[in-house]
Amino acid sequence: PASKLPDVGASIFTVMSALANEHQAINLSQGFPDFNCPEPLIHLADKYMREGFNQYAPMAGMPQLRHKISLKTEKMYGFSPDPDTEVTVTSGATEALNAAITAVVKPGDEVVVLEPCYDSYAPVIRLCGGAPMYVPLSLPDFSIDWDQVKKRVSSRTRLIIINTPHNPTGAVMSRQDMDTLANLLDGTDILVLSDEVYEHMVFDGQEHYSALQHPQLRERSFVVSSFGKTYHTTGWKVGYAVAPAPLTNELRKMHQFITFCTATPLQLAIADFMEEETHYLGLPDFYQAKRDFFLEQLKQTRFEFIPSAGTYFQLVKYDGITDAYDVDFARHLTTQTGVAAIPVSAFYHDKTDNKYLRFCFAKSEETLRAAGEKLKSV
Amino acid sequence: PASKLPDVGASIFTVMSALANEHQAINLSQGFPDFNCPEPLIHLADKYMREGFNQYAPMAGMPQLRHKISLKTEKMYGFSPDPDTEVTVTSGATEALNAAITAVVKPGDEVVVLEPCYDSYAPVIRLCGGAPMYVPLSLPDFSIDWDQVKKRVSSRTRLIIINTPHNPTGAVMSRQDMDTLANLLDGTDILVLSDEVYEHMVFDGQEHYSALQHPQLRERSFVVSSFGKTYHTTGWKVGYAVAPAPLTNELRKMHQFITFCTATPLQLAIADFMEEETHYLGLPDFYQAKRDFFLEQLKQTRFEFIPSAGTYFQLVKYDGITDAYDVDFARHLTTQTGVAAIPVSAFYHDKTDNKYLRFCFAKSEETLRAAGEKLKSV
Ligand SMILES: CSCCC(=O)C(=O)O
Ligand SMILES: CSCCC(=O)C(=O)O
Repeated sequence: PASKLPDVGASIFTVMSALANEHQAINLSQGFPDFNCPEPLIHLADKYMREGFNQYAPMAGMPQLRHKISLKTEKMYGFSPDPDTEVTVTSGATEALNAAITAVVKPGDEVVVLEPCYDSYAPVIRLCGGAPMYVPLSLPDFSIDWDQVKKRVSSRTRLIIINTPHNPTGAVMSRQDMDTLANLLDGTDILVLSDEVYEHMVFDGQEHYSALQHPQLRERSFVVSSFGKTYHTTGWKVGYAVAPAPLTNELRKMHQFITFCTATPLQLAIADFMEEETHYLGLPDFYQAKRDFFLEQLKQTRFEFIPSAGTYFQLVKYDGITDAYDVDFARHLTTQTGVAAIPVSAFYHDKTDNKYLRFCFAKSEETLRAAGEKLKSV
Repeated sequence: PASKLPDVGASIFTVMSALANEHQAINLSQGFPDFNCPEPLIHLADKYMREGFNQYAPMAGMPQLRHKISLKTEKMYGFSPDPDTEVTVTSGATEALNAAITAVVKPGDEVVVLEPCYDSYAPVIRLCGGAPMYVPLSLPDFSIDWDQVKKRVSSRTRLIIINTPHNPTGAVMSRQDMDTLANLLDGTDILVLSDEVYEHMVFDGQEHYSALQHPQLRERSFVVSSFGKTYHTTGWKVGYAVAPAPLTNELRKMHQFITFCTATPLQLAIADFMEEETHYLGLPDFYQAKRDFFLEQLKQTRFEFIPSAGTYFQLVKYDGITDAYDVDFARHLTTQTGVAAIPVSAFYHDKTDNKYLRFCFAKSEETLRAAGEKLKSV
């Protein structure tokens, strides 16, 4: 019988990381740090495992961790979600996105999706019988054209997915964007899924503006974040969703049948580590320095760029170099130049090729310097 | 807007564990050990975290772990699945079940489900637009009435879900059951989802018979297992699915958008621990001794039972004691007697009450003795 997702193959992250490994290229494709997480996190995980915390966590997440998430949200966004009814720990942000979409999208529903976007949104919408309604972000700065969004909204619209800071472009939504969105949705029952996994990586003195800071938005929003990004533990698969109690209730019905719960000792380690949280306060400077170091390298190449405003990704434009399809050029760079990147067409449902590649700069200076050297030869 | 699962609330496991904690009852409800996992597993997880293995695993699972799963499957069932195309590591068996069902069930499809059964099967089928077609297992031994199964099969049947050793009843499918199933499916394109998470807990000299041992079955089956059950690490959330390459291909499309991947250091620890695997060989004796110890206690109570043939669960019949609804009786036992159990009606879609409770005996002798003492007072 026919596949439910006939056009879906291995994701671009799997493809490019595998190609990078095969050709021993420097892997700036899939987004993950090449440095280790803070040592205390490891120490705490080990401690909890030794103390016997190796059995199921409560379905919604360890209470300690939900409590810490609430405190941190209060500190950052002036709003404290109820840990019991509004915070859910998931097996990575990917599961939170899946659970939120699956909780609310029914056959025939429409979901507004801004492109380019993370590759899981549309397949999950389609698996629910929903239709992604794509709105392209506006070049060259990948800003949101709210008039276009408005045109895509209909009586069948169930959900709109936003992502700030934005993967792959690094664009950051402003307070005004959020106001515009809130006005657009006023009087409708359209929900919002706000993917904010890079919330702590915003540069040049800008601030991340969360849907949780906006009273009219947060009452209709699932807001998703990721400890993987914040604590350099993408391989621990601990993320979370904050949403009003009725939405959380529906999200948890999904979560309980998706993974039921998330690794107990890793949850406990993160909860303790958040006690005297200073780590995330350093992240903007930490990653801005990496971005700037990487941009220094790029300046000596033929790639063009606008500095990334957020995330740990930098887009480059390469049409001054070749008019190759971006997938082909990314393969070429990986196999011939020795640096792997993500072709941005992979983030468009119709594989729109605007001649952009995405590089991940969550890497040591050594890695970034070596990549820069190789890219100079292009 | 209406819930997609209006009749689903917090699962019985969440409800009973919370009630047990609230009343400081001995918790024999939700299935998990009250003893720790093998120490080397913890040591290995710690080692890998320190060595920096804290970033994304490959989507299909760490190659080392998939390789070990293949070797073990060969050793146990005389069949070695291809680690690259037939083995997928998931965030617990629950995710594997979700991914398998979601991969193949489309709107209008029917799925044959034997009741009582694990509570995630039916909601996931329904979320896919499928219809669970229930067949009750036959009392008093919860054997499968294949004539009834045959009557439930139609041209719309897409999948049949089996579970052996069986949660909550402890029943074990025989080789003959598997033959009958294979004959029944011969000439159809009906798939099988075989939930074998308790594969290493079979007692009294019986053997677990896996769908993987049956050439005609395995070519149409997803077989799901759980390291949580085998290594006393239910809180690590590492499970897996074995299926022929075309089915694995579809399952991975789901997995990549459900969690994408599973905790890297925990996967690596398990892979290493499997190197000189002797642990699982001891599990039948280990859990049979626990069952027998628990049955010794039960003999001194008014509960009736047939010794469990597999899993770490023991059913008891209580209708000689009260004709209360099993949910009420389970609550009463928890709050008044101080021992929490699972009411078996929770495993029936229509909450059929056959006056059974399920006790988990994956507990220390001390815990089981204390529970026995309390149950004597009933
Ligand atoms: C889950 S693999 C993809 C990681 C990521 O978020 C990215 O590279 O965009
Ligand atoms: C995932 S919580 C349920 C654990 C379990 O398998 C059971 O108790 O039946």
